[in-house]
Amino acid sequence: MKSQLIFKKKFPHPRTFGSETILIYDSHFNTVPKVRKWLKKFPLRYAVESGEKLKSLEKFPVHLQKILEKTEGLSRHGMKIVSLGGGSVGDFSGFVASVLKRGVPLLHIPSTWLSAVDSAHGGKNALNVAGFKNQVGTFYPAEKIYLIQELLETQSEQRLVEAFGEILKISLISGGSVWRNLQNQKYLSSELYWKNLKSYIEAKMKIVRQDPYEQKGLRQILNLGHTVGHVWETNLKFPHGLAILYGIAFALEWSLHRKTISSKKYYAIRLSEIGSYLPDRLDLKRILKVTSNASRLLQQDKKVGANGKIRFIFLAGPGQPIVEAVRLEEVLNEMRRQSR
Amino acid sequence: MKSQLIFKKKFPHPRTFGSETILIYDSHFNTVPKVRKWLKKFPLRYAVESGEKLKSLEKFPVHLQKILEKTEGLSRHGMKIVSLGGGSVGDFSGFVASVLKRGVPLLHIPSTWLSAVDSAHGGKNALNVAGFKNQVGTFYPAEKIYLIQELLETQSEQRLVEAFGEILKISLISGGSVWRNLQNQKYLSSELYWKNLKSYIEAKMKIVRQDPYEQKGLRQILNLGHTVGHVWETNLKFPHGLAILYGIAFALEWSLHRKTISSKKYYAIRLSEIGSYLPDRLDLKRILKVTSNASRLLQQDKKVGANGKIRFIFLAGPGQPIVEAVRLEEVLNEMRRQSR
Repeated sequence: MKSQLIFKKKFPHPRTFGSETILIYDSHFNTVPKVRKWLKKFPLRYAVESGEKLKSLEKFPVHLQKILEKTEGLSRHGMKIVSLGGGSVGDFSGFVASVLKRGVPLLHIPSTWLSAVDSAHGGKNALNVAGFKNQVGTFYPAEKIYLIQELLETQSEQRLVEAFGEILKISLISGGSVWRNLQNQKYLSSELYWKNLKSYIEAKMKIVRQDPYEQKGLRQILNLGHTVGHVWETNLKFPHGLAILYGIAFALEWSLHRKTISSKKYYAIRLSEIGSYLPDRLDLKRILKVTSNASRLLQQDKKVGANGKIRFIFLAGPGQPIVEAVRLEEVLNEMRRQSR
Repeated sequence: MKSQLIFKKKFPHPRTFGSETILIYDSHFNTVPKVRKWLKKFPLRYAVESGEKLKSLEKFPVHLQKILEKTEGLSRHGMKIVSLGGGSVGDFSGFVASVLKRGVPLLHIPSTWLSAVDSAHGGKNALNVAGFKNQVGTFYPAEKIYLIQELLETQSEQRLVEAFGEILKISLISGGSVWRNLQNQKYLSSELYWKNLKSYIEAKMKIVRQDPYEQKGLRQILNLGHTVGHVWETNLKFPHGLAILYGIAFALEWSLHRKTISSKKYYAIRLSEIGSYLPDRLDLKRILKVTSNASRLLQQDKKVGANGKIRFIFLAGPGQPIVEAVRLEEVLNEMRRQSR
């Protein structure tokens, strides 16, 4: 479960990635001249439209047939898949690589902060089935992950906010210097993210390595903010990072209400400089008022345990995540409480 | 890569397989009263029609959605997939288990001699893409494999012949006592297969364990008869076992022609009692005369190496398989030679 991290200021030559590679990339980059010029140098390319539609299992056979046609001359032993894009492209490409000819090597080039910080690492990929998120997938780590500053800086400001959900999550779970470095930041910026990228990735991988296949429950702390976040992602079409940010706020409120976290620690997070990026109680209330269909979505979630309970991640403070099995009803009740 | 083998004379109670199981089974058994009575005791069941159509990636999303609906109440951590059927059902169920919720435990109950001897073991599964065989799949061994005499004996005589291809293959590759026990058999029978089942499985697994993910080339010797066999399977719709039997005959002829095997050893195989089940030169000739499209099918095969060559399995004698990289042209030439 160890991927090699490679940090680059500039685009490496496509030759770096080998000759029998197929590049699966976000078609958006066809409109970014600087990136387009670079990716045109890859001998085999397959453009995909990023987003949740790409992750639909229903479309997967058609994609796979096209990829097979493009790679017809390549052998199973020599070929590689290089994925260039954000979370959905990485999830899609990762799943393709894991099942194509029973598995071919995978390289990730995350192009969004969200994927650079989080989803490209840890080996999980997934597709959606009939609108339900991540019902199908594999654990299949990339051989190498390229972090390219020049590429990551082509992103819009909005992407900084979307990545922030996972950055705040890993900082709150890890505590220590990761949280200390973040808490006094006034603004989100590319510089901040690039400077701390390695520490965010390492913080995540430290947890992943203890439980790579999510069998011991240790890796589950990475789901902070995800249980209810996924509901908003699915039924309000929130971008993943934003849904998680709301999910963290929800978990914080609940942790305070049931006294898992002390008021002192709660306010230390809430009132930190960076805390201003968290949605407040009123924001949560507004969102929860329009949240429907939660019960079925929560049940379908992979976080439901053998006893029908949901492993919810609470927070007792920075560096102190707490996994607790709660009944579905309890989550729904708390959603109702926070909506009032 | 170690699956537990469990031999049973009679059907074990479905309770044996756990409570959160879904049985994926060959719908043919709905017409076999004895088996039907037993499988009705499984709380969750999903019937599939066996055959190559089941292995079509294009149909996979629909199956998966139905399986998800049936298992909605089950958790990722408690649920299991039990597969009851032959090769296609096992391939399908194995792939489902490997990707559903990123992998749930798998139990195999092979119902044909072919799957009991070969395909249920070794962890490979696969689906076909746009008519090309086994282009997508995973390595995902079953936790347990149940060999049930009462079930295996419900098969027709024809199935004995279909399994024989893989039995002859493993016997010729392994040599020693496995081959000696087989060579003097006059008839194929359920008794013969049941008596030797464990030794066939162990002979295969001895090879698989040396190279579980087909990375070292050692496992490739199990492809004896498969390179050209797959062509017949795809374009003449031969049953797998029969295609392999013809493939072994082809490999034997080629081995003799290029003097990889001595005439003495060749005839010792050919003229053994069991050798009478091998198609003869005339049979091969007939089949090769109607074999079309071989070039593309051979190229698409996963056995093509990095240098564009095909790793063909020759035989120097029982227990002496020889892997050699040959050019596509050489295989096609030999197919032409044997068709004359």
